Amino acid sequence: MTESWVNSAERIGADLHLELSGPGGRRAALTRALREAVRSGRLAPGTRLPPYRSLAADLGVARNTVADAYAELVAEGWLTARQGSGTRVAMGLPSTPSGQSGRRKPPRQAVRTPVKTPPRAHGPRHDLRQGAPDASSFPRTAWSASYRRALQAAPSEAFGPGDPAERRELREALTEYLARARGVRTEPDRIVVCSGFAHALRLLFGEGTGGVLRGPLGVEAYGLDFHRGLLATAGVRTVPLPLDEHGARVEVLGRERAVLLTPAHQFPTGGPLHPERRAAVIDWARARGAVVLEDDYDGEFRYDRRPVGALQGLDPERVIYIGSVSKSLSPALRLGWMVLPERYVGPVLAAKGEREAWASVPDQLALADFVVSGSYDRHVRRMRQRYRGRRDRLVAAFAAHAPHIEVTGIAAGLHAVLRLPPGTERSTVKAATWQGVGLDGLAAFRHPQSPTTAGEGLVVGYAAAAEHTYEAALEALCGVLPPE
Amino acid sequence: MTESWVNSAERIGADLHLELSGPGGRRAALTRALREAVRSGRLAPGTRLPPYRSLAADLGVARNTVADAYAELVAEGWLTARQGSGTRVAMGLPSTPSGQSGRRKPPRQAVRTPVKTPPRAHGPRHDLRQGAPDASSFPRTAWSASYRRALQAAPSEAFGPGDPAERRELREALTEYLARARGVRTEPDRIVVCSGFAHALRLLFGEGTGGVLRGPLGVEAYGLDFHRGLLATAGVRTVPLPLDEHGARVEVLGRERAVLLTPAHQFPTGGPLHPERRAAVIDWARARGAVVLEDDYDGEFRYDRRPVGALQGLDPERVIYIGSVSKSLSPALRLGWMVLPERYVGPVLAAKGEREAWASVPDQLALADFVVSGSYDRHVRRMRQRYRGRRDRLVAAFAAHAPHIEVTGIAAGLHAVLRLPPGTERSTVKAATWQGVGLDGLAAFRHPQSPTTAGEGLVVGYAAAAEHTYEAALEALCGVLPPE
Repeated sequence: MTESWVNSAERIGADLHLELSGPGGRRAALTRALREAVRSGRLAPGTRLPPYRSLAADLGVARNTVADAYAELVAEGWLTARQGSGTRVAMGLPSTPSGQSGRRKPPRQAVRTPVKTPPRAHGPRHDLRQGAPDASSFPRTAWSASYRRALQAAPSEAFGPGDPAERRELREALTEYLARARGVRTEPDRIVVCSGFAHALRLLFGEGTGGVLRGPLGVEAYGLDFHRGLLATAGVRTVPLPLDEHGARVEVLGRERAVLLTPAHQFPTGGPLHPERRAAVIDWARARGAVVLEDDYDGEFRYDRRPVGALQGLDPERVIYIGSVSKSLSPALRLGWMVLPERYVGPVLAAKGEREAWASVPDQLALADFVVSGSYDRHVRRMRQRYRGRRDRLVAAFAAHAPHIEVTGIAAGLHAVLRLPPGTERSTVKAATWQGVGLDGLAAFRHPQSPTTAGEGLVVGYAAAAEHTYEAALEALCGVLPPE
Repeated sequence: MTESWVNSAERIGADLHLELSGPGGRRAALTRALREAVRSGRLAPGTRLPPYRSLAADLGVARNTVADAYAELVAEGWLTARQGSGTRVAMGLPSTPSGQSGRRKPPRQAVRTPVKTPPRAHGPRHDLRQGAPDASSFPRTAWSASYRRALQAAPSEAFGPGDPAERRELREALTEYLARARGVRTEPDRIVVCSGFAHALRLLFGEGTGGVLRGPLGVEAYGLDFHRGLLATAGVRTVPLPLDEHGARVEVLGRERAVLLTPAHQFPTGGPLHPERRAAVIDWARARGAVVLEDDYDGEFRYDRRPVGALQGLDPERVIYIGSVSKSLSPALRLGWMVLPERYVGPVLAAKGEREAWASVPDQLALADFVVSGSYDRHVRRMRQRYRGRRDRLVAAFAAHAPHIEVTGIAAGLHAVLRLPPGTERSTVKAATWQGVGLDGLAAFRHPQSPTTAGEGLVVGYAAAAEHTYEAALEALCGVLPPE
């Protein structure tokens, strides 16, 4: 079953009564115990494991002990590790029937029959997880052409040591593009190129050594636990803001020093931040001397009308705008950017320089060419049509086969939320997992201290599944939804 | 004058008596004071400024205050920031004659005449700094061809979310190449691709949050202060090992948990680690359960005989081998690799996954093709010839014009060390700087706690200067050397 790591941490740490005994020290014992829990079915395929920080604390062992155990089991194929989605029990494992899942085999059996031939690790048969774009649509030819042109045109110094702000060619292209496509008001010297959203968070908040910004940080009550984990590692306290039909309730912000929002398309619940709240959060930032972090992760993909412009346009000195090509082009390029208020440019560059610059210079130059030549616009338009088609098929499938299930958050982005009756989310995710459909329930995104709940539901990513399997994926999903 | 940051920290913090007074808070005051010190000539062009950690401690201000001040002065053009070489006073600034350099103008003048039009920032006229390869020789055409081929051949999943070990295609290519060219014994599953040496250090030692390895870490008494700064940030205590004509004196290693060496070509003094010491450090690591970090930064460029093979070949379970394309191809690609003992693979992947993977996937695929197709070997051979030619011209120039100056460390790599008489290094670096020749003295690389000195000398990088200026750079350098 897939669930928030908090729940699975409790489950693994408490319900399963992992006993770290036996030969070979605690690492070996933990590895054995987890392997056995997976093998016996007590940890079902698709189950999200807790971050090792958290399990380490629960079990009273060192973080590295948990990390080692996870890594070994990933290597053996029992677990899979995927960025942004954590460590999970692999799909398609040989396992005892779930009816036996409460019974614990004696530990000596795990010792007597060590795993020699690891099972083959692979993802779910139907990938409806959120987060990834359609990898098969990467514009290989146009991108290669931009890359070659950019490399031929580059000055020699582009192949030298470089500088933390990264290439000016790209920052100039982004200045024009972001103004036109997202209403961002900036200039090249306010842009710092980075490797994506996670890198931006680390540059802003540091990593154990203090950073440009400090907490407490207001966050939406639902979001990626990978980001919450990064912030926790940086020692930043996050304060969850409740969500309602107008987005995050920013009026509850008080003494926080910053707030992190997804204003164009709340992740994962899917609505835009109401215009009054957009104005209110800027007012709050001005009054408190605070700053708004705008995570514009899928702002280009809006289907109902013109894109919702960036919040940053309201006050470029109060908003840090963060974007990347991870959804629009590919996460494999590891390219993103921050648009900064003037006062943060120096400190961010200093932090970046101290840790060494990161993004591939040839890829930066290629992206600049890709944007300036119009290829980026063409690609985004093409993908918007494709994703809209996928979304429409999803809506049609549920209208036909599960009309009692409400589909929400579909005006934009690469995922939808299927609303479920109370008490059915966990079992539905589990049933989907057993049918080979990989996806998450809303609970997986809930901040552990969230004062409210966004209800129950499934977060369905419709971009990543291969085209020829998408219809079957929707069918399989319809088959496991709770009846009316 | 160019000098180690410790000396310049003392100089800036104490000799210059920076007074953080005046309007606008300490940041503004520090910015003014530094700007004035540069403008008056008291901080000469090329002077290396202390890391902001260090100056902040000296002045009793927050680290960000110093970072902000530096960043503002970089933006104004008074300072330049360059990775691996720290923050320096820009070259070619308008300045009062050095005869006035002891006299301090009243602070109010700096306030009354704020800098509105920043001077143009640029590097030295003759770049003989170590660290960078010849940027003009990047093999644009062959690399673009590899990139295009690799992109066409890649499976779709290459453009999806990826995994912390990075691309298997590259790890397989490296396994074969490193065995053949460097004597590294490994397999693809022991290789983790990263963004270069600094990234490898951070993955191994963490960043304030604990890491895979722990200190104290033995290091060579001379090395890059950028690396020492990274280790200090990670809370790792470094213990300097004295150097002699056989390299680092590894017999003084005791309770350190790891040691970081440049066995093929000690950086910067230039000799290989003696075979007996290679064996001795492995023995030490085995006896103590410790690990050797091998920084093979320029192992491909050896001119006198077959390359000195990697230390890693002696015991793959006791050595972490770290390499990159930064010297062989370009630092702009930000591609490196770690070859790990089996027990570290899991923890390093876990640390990397938690922080998100980094290196551009298309560039990884391109490098795999570049290696497998033989283009990498061809490029390295071509560059080895070119660098050897540069080195020979350097040796010839000094034999003709400064025969009393010994040139050492020239059997390999991209830099040489010119030995200087006692008491002349600092003034020679300063004179070179005023003649527009950018380079460093040995003192800039000395560990602050080094028990011994490697003597005085200049570290001359002969790879980065443009071909048409190299002769003039050597002439300018000969002109400032101390007389016999």
